[in-house]
Amino acid sequence: MTHRAARPTSAMTLLLGMVLLFSRVAIAHAAKRPPNFVIIYADDLGYGDLGCFGHPTIRTPHLDRMANEGLRFTQFYSASPVCTPSRAALMTGRLPIRNGMCSDKRRVLFPDSGGGIPADEITLAEALKSKGYATGCFGKWHLGHLPQFLPTNNGFDTYYGIPYSNDMDRLADAGPKGRAAFWDPKIEYWNVPILRDTEVIERPADQTTITRRYTEEAISFIRAHQEEPFLVYLPHSMVHIPLFRSDDFVGKSARGLYGDCVEEVDWSVGQVLHTLRDLNLDEQTLVFFSSDNGPWLTFNEHGGSAGLLKDGKGTTFEGGMREPTIAWWPGRVSSGRVTQELGSTMDIFTTCVTLAGANVPTDRIIDGVDLSPVLFDEGPTNRKSVLYYRGTALMAVRFGPWKAHYFTQTSYRKDSRQRETHNPPLLYHLGHDPSERFNINEEHPEILAQIDALVADHRQNLEVPASQLEIPLPAQSE
Amino acid sequence: MTHRAARPTSAMTLLLGMVLLFSRVAIAHAAKRPPNFVIIYADDLGYGDLGCFGHPTIRTPHLDRMANEGLRFTQFYSASPVCTPSRAALMTGRLPIRNGMCSDKRRVLFPDSGGGIPADEITLAEALKSKGYATGCFGKWHLGHLPQFLPTNNGFDTYYGIPYSNDMDRLADAGPKGRAAFWDPKIEYWNVPILRDTEVIERPADQTTITRRYTEEAISFIRAHQEEPFLVYLPHSMVHIPLFRSDDFVGKSARGLYGDCVEEVDWSVGQVLHTLRDLNLDEQTLVFFSSDNGPWLTFNEHGGSAGLLKDGKGTTFEGGMREPTIAWWPGRVSSGRVTQELGSTMDIFTTCVTLAGANVPTDRIIDGVDLSPVLFDEGPTNRKSVLYYRGTALMAVRFGPWKAHYFTQTSYRKDSRQRETHNPPLLYHLGHDPSERFNINEEHPEILAQIDALVADHRQNLEVPASQLEIPLPAQSE
Repeated sequence: MTHRAARPTSAMTLLLGMVLLFSRVAIAHAAKRPPNFVIIYADDLGYGDLGCFGHPTIRTPHLDRMANEGLRFTQFYSASPVCTPSRAALMTGRLPIRNGMCSDKRRVLFPDSGGGIPADEITLAEALKSKGYATGCFGKWHLGHLPQFLPTNNGFDTYYGIPYSNDMDRLADAGPKGRAAFWDPKIEYWNVPILRDTEVIERPADQTTITRRYTEEAISFIRAHQEEPFLVYLPHSMVHIPLFRSDDFVGKSARGLYGDCVEEVDWSVGQVLHTLRDLNLDEQTLVFFSSDNGPWLTFNEHGGSAGLLKDGKGTTFEGGMREPTIAWWPGRVSSGRVTQELGSTMDIFTTCVTLAGANVPTDRIIDGVDLSPVLFDEGPTNRKSVLYYRGTALMAVRFGPWKAHYFTQTSYRKDSRQRETHNPPLLYHLGHDPSERFNINEEHPEILAQIDALVADHRQNLEVPASQLEIPLPAQSE
Repeated sequence: MTHRAARPTSAMTLLLGMVLLFSRVAIAHAAKRPPNFVIIYADDLGYGDLGCFGHPTIRTPHLDRMANEGLRFTQFYSASPVCTPSRAALMTGRLPIRNGMCSDKRRVLFPDSGGGIPADEITLAEALKSKGYATGCFGKWHLGHLPQFLPTNNGFDTYYGIPYSNDMDRLADAGPKGRAAFWDPKIEYWNVPILRDTEVIERPADQTTITRRYTEEAISFIRAHQEEPFLVYLPHSMVHIPLFRSDDFVGKSARGLYGDCVEEVDWSVGQVLHTLRDLNLDEQTLVFFSSDNGPWLTFNEHGGSAGLLKDGKGTTFEGGMREPTIAWWPGRVSSGRVTQELGSTMDIFTTCVTLAGANVPTDRIIDGVDLSPVLFDEGPTNRKSVLYYRGTALMAVRFGPWKAHYFTQTSYRKDSRQRETHNPPLLYHLGHDPSERFNINEEHPEILAQIDALVADHRQNLEVPASQLEIPLPAQSE
């Protein structure tokens, strides 16, 4: 099997070069409006699951091309190793601990949850509305499914998608219980709805076409709003278990079912970028690709791979929270770069708000920083650390290349899922030791002291509201 | 930290396109001579240690560019998980079991070995000599250090390098013994020589400049022989332990000492490709980059990473024998491709001999196949399987995406280094399960039967000569 990233021949390069030169001059005059933003978010995709991040059997030519044309981040983090808190952080630029979007009892929102993103939180969509952006969300929301929590009540003009994880709403009578049934796609076990804005329009959702339909909805929105600045948030339901893909992708990947699904997400990215080029919006649009958390390793072949990183989804090892991330903005983000600068999905909030010329909220703590210096190759950003929360527990802290684990808890071996406390914390140098293999806490007490100080500083300003994830459904909704 | 792969701007692209179009026409007329070959071989480099194979903190912009301009193999194997047999196979296109270049008692040649590559073996250099190639070897040979075994008595016009591993010839009085000393670069423990042809010209070798000097020698050779077809074999001593790099690379890599050394090898690749472009030889030269075996995991941070692959050097798990491999030939090997076709370093022999118009030997079994179909995107090659030998033991067999382990033996945990026998063999699907995690032998007896038949067929034609690796030095040489 061989594939080829779309690349021009010399003659095409010549022609393309001329076209680009002319179009850039034209666009420079037209580009008075703020940039468009597209955020494509995969679900449970592993750090090592893309071709450009080293996977040997999953083919991702569109994401590889996106990386070749843009900036690939090798040290980019989600704010949580599970869905709901991770997505809340992306949308608000704030740690989930600050807005009740995490819990130690229930790690994410469920169909029987009555909570969701608090009304006083400012979502990216709301922040961009102040600058006249058209805003659309197409995919998995997972910040509350009651009407007041849905995208259209949180800054988005329109919403289309499954409101929570695609393995929820199980039909009790649809098949055997237990973990084997849980991830066997032959057993139709799920009853998740598709919503248009706040209305259920399909139930159970036909998930085989879900990646394609999210993509088509996003593209229609882009075409409809090409004359105004827009935000497209495209959080795919894939590659969360249960895995589904459309007929065109059945048996396509050498990686099997999981690979088929990643390759369809890759196709989706290709479609979006193609649309932007086609509409001459590529040089006016900043696109981010990332994932909400690491691979779901408990599901064997149905889970992804974090590559050389340790562990996966649900944990605060690197495999749980470091995400394969790419930024793309032809003409602004120079092509073919790889950066080791730290980044966080929370930074996407601050970066987009800043680039739009809107106000980053000052009445609350915003954890995201502006990524512009690294995007535009102008120097370091203000991000020097990463906080690894699991529920309300601050498990680990990264400071420069160093990572201290105050607590650890693995995901995949049932016999070792106990939380372990480390005092002094385990210390790893993630530059030298990206796989967290060699604890060197005895050699560097001075680093531990710096990290302790950083934690104390963080805690001093921390206010922890009640958890939204523990609120049951109001009686009348059941 | 941010780096940028060398990439043209639009204006440069335009100019470059025009230059390329003209130069290609010119070269098409001139290129009657057979192609040049350059084989750059790293030592103990892990599958996951290059940027284009997913490493997060080692920067390899030159190899990344080579991949972007060429063909990246994700399923390319050495013929052995240790140095001597791997290199013998590369040079002869034959499994080491066929020519005595392996052993169960001594896994590689040592300074007290009296054996080496048998005189009746046909090396790639000897095969290309029949077509008038200039042939140079610059680096680690490790196929015997007595005069009759050295490169200049095996088809190479010239040789410059350390004749075996850079950790050999230990000075007994130079420092404390034991493993800690063994890999501590502060303890100068080694007394390896540098040879010019068959003469020792420096001892101990100054290894800090070894990567740079091999590169300079190779480039001088290319410049001197630019008017005739040439073979340059550049087997670096790095990144084998002990690790050394020149002053320019000290502290350069976020991965530490090991990363510094990989980044200097990357620099070397950049220098070679730059020279080929500079001399207008790029479109007449096929360049391969690969490694002799996987990372030496027993040395902690001083060893590399096999990425998502299992285990490393010395083992017949994927991490021991799958190599980060790139082929580059502008104008012939189309750019930006990634292939999952199987390949072996033994195939480099057959491919080069075939492309040179020389004869692939027919009086003996050649295990290499011609990679031209995959290089030139014309279809599958004849390689359908990979045999994983450890010494004289056939440990495992890959057949298509399937891999059966008859025996396993890990490298890094002392308590588990025992050889385990598996009957029936362990069976993994390397497409779905590249990390060899999920044994599915009970589900696929028919695949095991096919692999058993393949093994029986292989053994029917197998003649095993006495090992060269067990021959002691003749008394007079000591």
